[in-house]
Amino acid sequence: MDLKHFIRDIPDFPKPGIIFKDVTPLLRDPEAFKESIELLKNAASFWDFDLIVAPEARGFIFAAPLALEMGKGFIPIRKPGKLPYKVISKSYSLEYGEAALEMHKDAIVERNKVLILDDVLATGGTIKAIAEMIEEAGGEVAGILTLIELSFLEPRKKLKDYQVKALITY
Amino acid sequence: MDLKHFIRDIPDFPKPGIIFKDVTPLLRDPEAFKESIELLKNAASFWDFDLIVAPEARGFIFAAPLALEMGKGFIPIRKPGKLPYKVISKSYSLEYGEAALEMHKDAIVERNKVLILDDVLATGGTIKAIAEMIEEAGGEVAGILTLIELSFLEPRKKLKDYQVKALITY
Repeated sequence: MDLKHFIRDIPDFPKPGIIFKDVTPLLRDPEAFKESIELLKNAASFWDFDLIVAPEARGFIFAAPLALEMGKGFIPIRKPGKLPYKVISKSYSLEYGEAALEMHKDAIVERNKVLILDDVLATGGTIKAIAEMIEEAGGEVAGILTLIELSFLEPRKKLKDYQVKALITY
Repeated sequence: MDLKHFIRDIPDFPKPGIIFKDVTPLLRDPEAFKESIELLKNAASFWDFDLIVAPEARGFIFAAPLALEMGKGFIPIRKPGKLPYKVISKSYSLEYGEAALEMHKDAIVERNKVLILDDVLATGGTIKAIAEMIEEAGGEVAGILTLIELSFLEPRKKLKDYQVKALITY
């Protein structure tokens, strides 16, 4: 099964000139969605880890099933103000302006080995910020896994200290 | 296993006087998370449906694994401006002010049978808006399923036209 057939190009979203990779057709097809989780599992099996961390909201859709499938804990990363308990915050630069992410303070303990997962790896800024949060909490980034990599945005330049795997590359 | 042991009370979040039900300890425990999906599956087996619809972001964490486990399609409901393709929008009232949700126009076709899933059922306003979107798209609400129901907020009053099931009730 070629998963690319289930990913829809949306031109000029969210901004003119950007072609957005829409995974909703894949999610609506039980066979294709299942196949994507199987392939993520095969890729993740390469690493030794205890926890899977993913940013809201689309990251959750792939990370939660993968965590269950592999018997790992799942840690959500959220936009500011969404997590109810004590948090670690991290600001990072976007093309225009700044963004911030939060993780619960007790989510990661010393020496936890962590897989970071997202649906699309674009500039790598979000994933870099998450990796730094994990390390500040005393954890270790086992690897970075993504369904889709936009390689023309060169995310691996920002992530050269980490092992990165992608199922689908554009 | 008593899943209530994995749900943490956070007083005064997001506003003074509200006790927030934090599911992150459950998600971090692979056994408890797995058990919650098994119990959701048992409850959902009561209904006949093709698709599972859930609102961002925490709804995704339970709905995506359940859809995979049951071989159903998954449809994400998002805040305005997040979905890239043509959308159906729905505004609804909150205690203070208004909120809105969006669903892709091609997510639901005539006569699709749909299960709505969320992690916490509070006033029922969000779920009611989703049910109306599904019906406007020509679909049929097979049932409403939630991990946690805050019964003292009487969500079933708003949802009396639907069948509602909850795993955990406060």
